[in-house]
This record gives sequence, C-alpha cells and structure tokens, in this order.
Amino acid sequence: MLPTPKKFKVVAGGAEGKSKLTAFDNALLKAGVGNVNLVKVSSILPPYCEFDPDFALPLGALTPIAYGSIVSDVPGETISAAVAVGVPEEDTMGVIMEFSGKCSKEEAEVTIRKMVEEAFEVRNLALKEIKVCAVDHKVEKIGCAFAAAPLWY
Amino acid sequence: MLPTPKKFKVVAGGAEGKSKLTAFDNALLKAGVGNVNLVKVSSILPPYCEFDPDFALPLGALTPIAYGSIVSDVPGETISAAVAVGVPEEDTMGVIMEFSGKCSKEEAEVTIRKMVEEAFEVRNLALKEIKVCAVDHKVEKIGCAFAAAPLWY
Amino acid sequence: MLPTPKKFKVVAGGAEGKSKLTAFDNALLKAGVGNVNLVKVSSILPPYCEFDPDFALPLGALTPIAYGSIVSDVPGETISAAVAVGVPEEDTMGVIMEFSGKCSKEEAEVTIRKMVEEAFEVRNLALKEIKVCAVDHKVEKIGCAFAAAPLWY
Repeated sequence: MLPTPKKFKVVAGGAEGKSKLTAFDNALLKAGVGNVNLVKVSSILPPYCEFDPDFALPLGALTPIAYGSIVSDVPGETISAAVAVGVPEEDTMGVIMEFSGKCSKEEAEVTIRKMVEEAFEVRNLALKEIKVCAVDHKVEKIGCAFAAAPLWY
Repeated sequence: MLPTPKKFKVVAGGAEGKSKLTAFDNALLKAGVGNVNLVKVSSILPPYCEFDPDFALPLGALTPIAYGSIVSDVPGETISAAVAVGVPEEDTMGVIMEFSGKCSKEEAEVTIRKMVEEAFEVRNLALKEIKVCAVDHKVEKIGCAFAAAPLWY
Repeated sequence: MLPTPKKFKVVAGGAEGKSKLTAFDNALLKAGVGNVNLVKVSSILPPYCEFDPDFALPLGALTPIAYGSIVSDVPGETISAAVAVGVPEEDTMGVIMEFSGKCSKEEAEVTIRKMVEEAFEVRNLALKEIKVCAVDHKVEKIGCAFAAAPLWY
C-alpha cells in the first residue's frame, strides 16, 4: 500500500499571476508548497498524524495534500480559501475540510469550522481542536487564493 | 514506483449535508470510503487485480480510487452516480468508467455499460463481465450522489 | 514517503468518443497513456528527473502525471491542449505547466512557453530549455484534446 502520512501542517497564500495557472503557482509559493508535486487527497487526518508546523518538503516530492483554491480575473473581487483540520480527542482519525469562495477570510473561517463540526458529529467523534488556516486576496488582474493541509512523513 | 493495486470493489452512496463538501463527505461515508484519503485515479483495472467485495481500508490510508460524483442544491432534483469495472477475458488490464448526472440510477447504469463496452472495443479487448454500482438521490436541500471503485492491496 | 520520479516525457493526443469520458479515454490512448492509472500532480520537475522519450509504463501502473485536457461537444470547434516542462540550467527542480483552450496548437504553445518563463522568473531560476508538446483537435461530435508530462522511475 501507499505509506500513510505521519505529520501535517496548515498553510495558505494569495497571489497575482499573468495567467490563471501561474496565479495558482504563485499562491502555492506564498503558501510554501510551490516547489513540490501536489497529490490532492480527499481528506482524512490519519490516526497518529501529528501537527508539525516546521517540516520541510523535498523539492519535487509527491506530497499528499488537501486543499481549496479559487482563481478570479475580476478586478476588485475578494476571494478566499480556507482549510481546517479537526483533531480528535481520542487516538483515532480526524477530518480535513477545504473551502474557497468569494468572501472574506473571516467568513471562510466561520464556514469551515462548521464543516469540520458537522463531519465530526456525523461520525460520533469528539473534537479536541480545529487547526484553521485561511487567506483572502483582492484581485488586481488575475488572482488566486489557496489554503492547504500538506501531509507528510 | 508506486505499488500497483491488487484488489478492487465497487461502492456507491447518496446523502444530504449542510454544505456541498459535507454532502460529499456524507455520501462517501454511505459508500464505505468516508474514513480514508481518496487519491483519484483515471482509471484502469491493473492486470491480476481481483474483485473482492470485503476488504477493509485502514483509517486515513491513501486509497487509489476511480469515482464519479455530483452535488446539487436544487430541491427535488434526482442526481445519480455510477461506476463500472470492465473485467477482461484474458489475463490483462481492464477499464473503469465513472458517470454522474441528473438522471435515474437505471439510466446511469445503461450509460456506463456502454462506456465500458466502447473502451474495450477501442482496445480490442474481450469483455468477461462488467461490475456495476450505481445510486440515485433525490435532493432535499443539498445532496450528493457518489460511486467509486476503490483499488487496494 | 512516496518515491520521487526520476524520468519524464511529454505526450499529447486528440480524439473523438461516443461520450465525454470515452473521448478523454481515446485521447489518452493516442497520447500513449491510456492503459495506466493517471495520478494527477501539480506540477514540478524534481531535481535529477531526466527526459526520456522512450520509457514504457506497465499496464495499470499508478502514474504521476501533470496534464491539461479539454472536452467539447460543439461540432467544428477547435480545441487544444499543451504541456511544457521547463528544464533548469542548474541541478535543481524545474516547473511543468499545462494548458487547454479553444484555440490552435500554435497559440497553445505560445501561451504555455510564457507560463513556464513566468514560473522560472518568479523562482529566480535559469531556464535551460523548454520541452513542449501540444495538440489541437477539430470536434466532429464529441472530442477531447489532451497533453501531459508523465513522470516515472
């Protein structure tokens, strides 16, 4: 099987670019995950996967990651992305949620906390804490907001 | 290289949620894959990968999976998702197809069988059988239909 | 951790199908990646990952791949997809960009070269060369254009 990740952190970034994909690329760089290969996952915190805000990712590494992102080319528009990791009370799995939309960072955070709470409730899991990271970005020409929970070893 | 999967099954689920992502999460739980990390693949049955309806997935495991899903917030709308795995006559690869749309489960099944037949025909492969799994869901507020072929070891 | 790829190539294909997903499947076959499990990555050339136009992928293998694709069911429409891998001067990472749109192959190539140049500039990396592969396809009924950089071991 593929190895199960053992560490996570939460990151976010907003940026402009000359195209939609390079705006996305620039937002990844701001978030500190622009130099690895993102492998999008949907999106569980494995048991014993610990919060570690400091790990470094090797260049080009295949990196399991849960993320939300939004790109806009409407000048003046505010876009936001948020990620939240629900950490369980017991030694079991948690849940990761991603959000992106045309709203402020604060609204994104409120929304995503509710999503984690719903996911814990439906699984009858007790919630110890929620690690949240969110960003908003006011579009100049072509902008991207990105938030993610990279998982690592 | 990444290890090639050795087993597969077909699953499906429909559910409501308070948001689009939690509706998706709840549909995954109904389908029995809500507590793992889905790594979406596009979508071949490896040679010697055997049907096994009973395997369990470890919590949080990185799980290669082919899936189709649809989310709707139009009350009363019927949404469906289907997955079909074409199993070959000979000891070689098969093909997995995914479908989602605004139709009944029966229509989704008819559509997806044709897709597998086309994929076998274009590859000049003889088809032994098609494993199909489909679901439909009538939306109350925010609903999701999800069907998948998880691949495992 | 997941193993980091050591080789890459660039491929592209355009095709018709009876449905959108089988058009995509047929374009993958034309591009030579139709019989593996694509694991989409976003999209860095790892250090020491070398260009090799000749490697074969085992049937059904989980294959890290950066790709762009577009499907259209508008008869007569020209669709295109392009991929470009920026190879660095120094022994470090490069960047992969993907593009798809309703334009000619030539326009796609111009666009994607600029995207790679922007990604190198923002990272202060010197660009040695760009490997580009692009395709366009004139839709008959349901068509797909697909371009990709598969990464391998």
